[in-house]
Amino acid sequence: MNANPKFLSATAMVDEAAIKPLPNSRKVHVQGSRPGIRVPMRGVAQADTPTMFGGEKNPPVFVYDCSGPYTDPAVKIDIRSGLAPLRQAWIEERGDSELLNGPSSLFGKERLTDAKLAELRFNLHRMPRRARSGKNVSQMHYARKGIITPEMEFIAIRENLQREAYIESLKATGKTGGKMLELLMRQHRGESFGAAIPDLITPEFVRSEVARGRAIIPANINHPESEPMIIGRNFLVKINANIGNSAVSSGIGEEVEKMTWSIRWGGDTVMDLSTGKHIHETREWIIRNSPVPIGTVPIYQALEKVDGKAEDLTWEIYRDTLIEQAEQGVDYFTIHAGVLLRYVPMTAKRMTGIVSRGGSIMAKWCLSHHKESFLYTHFEDICDIMKAYDVSFSLGDGLRPGSGYDANDEAQLSELRTLGELTQVAWKHDVQVMIEGPGHVPMQLIKENMEIQLKECHEAPFYTLGPLTTDIAPGYDHITSAIGAAQIGWYGTAMLCYVTPKEHLGLPNKKDVKDGIMAYKIAAHAADLAKGHPGAQIRDNAVSKARFEFRWEDQFNLGLDPDTAKDFHDETLPKDSMKVAHFCSMCGPHFCSMKITQDVRDYVEKGMREKSVEFVKKGAEIYLPEKPGA
Amino acid sequence: MNANPKFLSATAMVDEAAIKPLPNSRKVHVQGSRPGIRVPMRGVAQADTPTMFGGEKNPPVFVYDCSGPYTDPAVKIDIRSGLAPLRQAWIEERGDSELLNGPSSLFGKERLTDAKLAELRFNLHRMPRRARSGKNVSQMHYARKGIITPEMEFIAIRENLQREAYIESLKATGKTGGKMLELLMRQHRGESFGAAIPDLITPEFVRSEVARGRAIIPANINHPESEPMIIGRNFLVKINANIGNSAVSSGIGEEVEKMTWSIRWGGDTVMDLSTGKHIHETREWIIRNSPVPIGTVPIYQALEKVDGKAEDLTWEIYRDTLIEQAEQGVDYFTIHAGVLLRYVPMTAKRMTGIVSRGGSIMAKWCLSHHKESFLYTHFEDICDIMKAYDVSFSLGDGLRPGSGYDANDEAQLSELRTLGELTQVAWKHDVQVMIEGPGHVPMQLIKENMEIQLKECHEAPFYTLGPLTTDIAPGYDHITSAIGAAQIGWYGTAMLCYVTPKEHLGLPNKKDVKDGIMAYKIAAHAADLAKGHPGAQIRDNAVSKARFEFRWEDQFNLGLDPDTAKDFHDETLPKDSMKVAHFCSMCGPHFCSMKITQDVRDYVEKGMREKSVEFVKKGAEIYLPEKPGA
Repeated sequence: MNANPKFLSATAMVDEAAIKPLPNSRKVHVQGSRPGIRVPMRGVAQADTPTMFGGEKNPPVFVYDCSGPYTDPAVKIDIRSGLAPLRQAWIEERGDSELLNGPSSLFGKERLTDAKLAELRFNLHRMPRRARSGKNVSQMHYARKGIITPEMEFIAIRENLQREAYIESLKATGKTGGKMLELLMRQHRGESFGAAIPDLITPEFVRSEVARGRAIIPANINHPESEPMIIGRNFLVKINANIGNSAVSSGIGEEVEKMTWSIRWGGDTVMDLSTGKHIHETREWIIRNSPVPIGTVPIYQALEKVDGKAEDLTWEIYRDTLIEQAEQGVDYFTIHAGVLLRYVPMTAKRMTGIVSRGGSIMAKWCLSHHKESFLYTHFEDICDIMKAYDVSFSLGDGLRPGSGYDANDEAQLSELRTLGELTQVAWKHDVQVMIEGPGHVPMQLIKENMEIQLKECHEAPFYTLGPLTTDIAPGYDHITSAIGAAQIGWYGTAMLCYVTPKEHLGLPNKKDVKDGIMAYKIAAHAADLAKGHPGAQIRDNAVSKARFEFRWEDQFNLGLDPDTAKDFHDETLPKDSMKVAHFCSMCGPHFCSMKITQDVRDYVEKGMREKSVEFVKKGAEIYLPEKPGA
Repeated sequence: MNANPKFLSATAMVDEAAIKPLPNSRKVHVQGSRPGIRVPMRGVAQADTPTMFGGEKNPPVFVYDCSGPYTDPAVKIDIRSGLAPLRQAWIEERGDSELLNGPSSLFGKERLTDAKLAELRFNLHRMPRRARSGKNVSQMHYARKGIITPEMEFIAIRENLQREAYIESLKATGKTGGKMLELLMRQHRGESFGAAIPDLITPEFVRSEVARGRAIIPANINHPESEPMIIGRNFLVKINANIGNSAVSSGIGEEVEKMTWSIRWGGDTVMDLSTGKHIHETREWIIRNSPVPIGTVPIYQALEKVDGKAEDLTWEIYRDTLIEQAEQGVDYFTIHAGVLLRYVPMTAKRMTGIVSRGGSIMAKWCLSHHKESFLYTHFEDICDIMKAYDVSFSLGDGLRPGSGYDANDEAQLSELRTLGELTQVAWKHDVQVMIEGPGHVPMQLIKENMEIQLKECHEAPFYTLGPLTTDIAPGYDHITSAIGAAQIGWYGTAMLCYVTPKEHLGLPNKKDVKDGIMAYKIAAHAADLAKGHPGAQIRDNAVSKARFEFRWEDQFNLGLDPDTAKDFHDETLPKDSMKVAHFCSMCGPHFCSMKITQDVRDYVEKGMREKSVEFVKKGAEIYLPEKPGA
C-alpha cells in the first residue's frame, strides 16, 4: 500500500486511544436467529456494594454500543483493509442485486484510472453492487412486502439490549440481588406526545415502522460493513456527528480519525461534509472503516466539479455524483429538493438569509436559471437511483433559519410542506426518507415546529440540527443547542445532528467532536427518559446507586465519559486510595451528605426495630407536625 | 495590612485578567432620580456594516452587567479596602437602623479579639448596623408600606436597560439606521405560563412585586457595597454561582478570586458555601469586595462550631451564627426549616437518600432528638433576626432528590408544602422569601414540579439547582442541568443555581466556575427569550446580524464569552486579516453560504427591478410550483 504520509500517516494505524476498550468494559455480542446476526453491546462491570452499605453484588450494566469492532480486542484493526463486510451474505442471498464490473459513474471511473491518485486510494477489492434491473433493494421495499430482513432482526435485538441484557444479568445474580437492584428496573412514566414505544421491540415492529415510513434503516448495499441501526420516533433517539474537511483545513487521516473518535463516544451515524480536495478518496476511506451509516450532501461535491459555480450545475453532473457516491456505499443523501423558486424571495427579508450551504447553492441555481431546480424536477429519477442501492433520503432543509429571529418563518415552513409532498413521492417508490430540520429556534417555538413536521411530513422521521435556543453564545453552541435538542427529541425528533463548540467559528478538532457528541448523547438520553423509553433509566439508576455507595470507579465507568470523570475527580483527590474514599473534595471527609444519609438510613431502620414498643405507645403522634414558631 | 501570603497573596491585588474591561466594551452608568442612583451597564460597540452589505452604522448594544466596579477603568481596585458602600446613604437616611459598637454575636466578638487571626482579618472600619428596636428594615416591609426605595428604582432602571438604552442608541444613530437596525427591535412572542412581564418595568411595579412576595431584593443593610438586583418571575431570570472552600481544598485568596471571576461572566448572586477553616474571615473578604448579593448556608458554620456533630447543634449556637453572618452582610440565608421529623423516614426507600448537606444535618438532628428541628420550632425567632438586617430567606430543599429516580417523590413534595406554610409565616413578618428547588428531575417531570411550587408556595420565587435531566454524565453536569434549567426558567423559576462540570466529582476551579456560569447564562437567557421578556432578543439579533455581515469581532464581542469565541476562530484562521474575511474555515473561501445568500439577496433585489416588465407578462405563474419529477 502506497500511503502518502501527508494524508495518511495518521491512518496507517488508527490512534490507540481511540480503540482501546472503555474502562472496565467488555464487548459482548448477542446472537440472533442465525450465526451472522451478532449484535454488539458494551457491558460495564461493577464492583460489589461496600459492606457498610449491605455488600450486595451489582451485575454489569449493558449499553448501546456504536463503536464497532474498534473496541473489540478480538478484532485486529488495520484501516488499510477496512472492516469485515458484516452484511454481505444477507445482501447476496436476497438475490436482487448484482456486482458491477467497476464504478458506473463517469467520475468514479476517472478517479480509478488516475495514476496520480494511486497513493491516496483505498485499495478496495470488492466491486460495487446495484439492484438488478427492475428490482428495489430498499429496506422499505422489503418491509412493505412483509419481509423481516436480518437488518431488522439485528435492530430489534439492539434496541432492547440495554433492558433485556440487564434483566438477564439480574437473573444471573440470583439471590444476591437486593432491594436496590430491583429498584434499578423501575423508572418514571414518560410523556411521549403520541409516540408509541412498545415495551419490547420485535423484528415485526421494526418492519412495520419501516413499512409505514415512520422509521428508516440507512443501509446501502455497498456499505456491508455497517452494523444495522434505525432512526424513528418509536426507537431510541440517535445522534449524528458531522466531520469533513474544507479547502482550508484537515486531511484524509484526520477525518478517518474523527470518524473512529465519533463512534467511540456514541455517534450513531456520521456525515462526511468534506468540501476540499480528494472528497472521493476521503469518503472511500471513511466508509470502508465505518461500522455506522455514513451520510453526505452530494451537491457539495457536484459543486466542486463545476469549480464552485452554482449556476453551472446540471442534472447530469449531479446524477453522476449520486451514482458515484451510492456505489461507494453512502447510506443517506441530504438532498435539498424543497428549495423552490417561489420560496427564495421569502428569504430576502430575513435576518440571516439562507444559511444552509446546499440551500444557498440551489437558491442561486434557481434564480440564475429562473426555474425549479433539477433536484425537484428530477426527483423521481433520484428515487430510481436511491432504490437501486438503498440510499435513504435525508430531505434537506435548505431554507432553515440561521438565527432565532428567522425561526418558523414562511420560507422555512413552506419548504417543509414541500418536503412532505416529496416524502410521499419517495414512498411511492418505496424509498426511505427522513426530514432535516433546524437550526435556530427559541424554546417557545420548538414544539410548534415538531408538530408541523409530524403533520406535514406524515410522520417521516425528523432529523434536526440542534436547534440552538439562543444566538448569544458563540463558542458554546453545543450547549445552546443541546437545550433545544433535548426538547425536540422529547417531542418526537428521531435523530439529533450534533453541534460542536466551534459552530459558527471554525472547523471542529477532535476535542470539539467529543464535546459535541457528549452534549448530544446527553440530549438524546434526556429525551429517551422523558419519552419513557423502556429501560432508559437503568443506566441513570446504576450511576445514582454507585454514587450513593461511594463506588467512585463505577460512577466514572457507567457514565458517558469515564476518562473525564476520573480526571476531574483526580484533580482534587488524586490518590488511588481516594477512589474508595467515602467523600469527595466538595465537602471533605467529615461533612458528606451521602455519608450522613446512610447514618440516617441506619438510624431509621434501627430505630424502627428498637423503638417499636415506644412507637406503639405514642402511635402516629410523634410524626404530627409541630406548629412553626411554636 | 498584614497579609498572610499563604492565604492572601492572590488577593493582595485582584487578578488583572478578571478586571480588565471586556473587549470593545465600555462601562456606562444611567442616573436615576438622584445622583446616588447610578445603574451600571456594559455597552458593546460595533463596527459599521461592510460597504458590500449596505454600509450602515450599528449602534452599541447594552447588556446587563454584574461585574461591578471591577470592569470600570475609572475605579481603582484594592481588595484590601473593599468596594465603596454604594447604598450606605440610602440605608442611613431611612433612619430605622443604628450602628452597633461591634459584632453582637458571641462568635463575631471572639474572632475579632483573637490575635492569631489578625493577619487573616479584613480590616473593616465600619461598625455593623441593625434595625432600631421594633423596626423592620426589609425591602418587603417598605414595599408593603407603599415606599419605593432607591433600591427599587435602581432595579427598575437595570431591568429595562438592555432595551431602553438600545432604543436611545438607535435614536442617536438617526437617519443612518437602516431596515436591519429596526429589525433588531423585533422579537418573537413569548409563552410565559402565567408570568406577567410588563413592557416597561417601573419602580412601582418593582415595589408591588416585592410587596406581593413574588420577587425579592436581597439587600442586607450590612452589605451596602451591593448593587441592587431582583429575583422574581416577572423579571430577567438570574443565576447564582456557588463558591467556597472545604477542609480539603482552597484558601481565602482563591475564593475571592472565584467571586470576582463569577461576576465578570455574569453571576447575579454568589453563594459562599465554605465549610473549611476560617469561614468567618473568608466570608468577610468576599462580602466586602462583592457588588452582588451573597448567600450562605449558616448551618454549615454552626456545624463547624460543634466539631461536625449534628446532634450537638443547638438553637443558641445557630442563632448566634445567624447574627454573626447577618452583621457581616450576608444577603440571603439558606435555611432548611422544612425538614420535618415525619418526612425523614420517607427518604429511607430512596435511591439516593438525602443529598442536601443541610437537609442531612437537620435529618440527623431530628432523629437524634426525636423532635422537630430548631429551624422549624424557632422559625418566628429567625424571622425577627432576618427583618433586623434585611436578610432574605432562601428556604432550603433539604429533601431534594439526589437522582432522577427520586424526583418529585413524597419526601420532596411534602417538604415543599411545608416551605409554602413557612413562606406565609415569614410574610407575616414582612420578611422576603425564595424557595429552593431541585436538583435531579427528568424533563417530563419539570413542569409539574414548577406548577406545584407556584401553587404551594404562593408564587414566592423559585430558585433551583439545575435540575439535572439525566444522571449518566458525570463530568458534564453543567450540560445535563442547563437543559433542565432552561426549561424550569421558562416555566417560571426566578433564579438558577449553576452546576459546574465538577459536580459530584470535586471542587470547581476557576475554569469550572466559568464553564458553569456560561451554561447557566445560556439557560437563563434562553428562558428570557421563551418567556418573551421585552428586549431579550436584541442581543441575539445583534449577534445574528454581525454574523451575517461577517463582522467577526462584533460576533465575538456581543457574545457571552468574547475570549473563547476569538480563540476558537483563531485556532483555524489565526491571521488578523481573517477577522475581516467573508468566510471561515468550516466552508472555506469559495463556499460560504452566507456569501451566497448575499448574492441571492442582491440578485432578488436587482431581479425585481430589472425583470419587472417580464414579471408583468408572466404574472404569478413563474412562481407556481412545477410538479416533482415532472
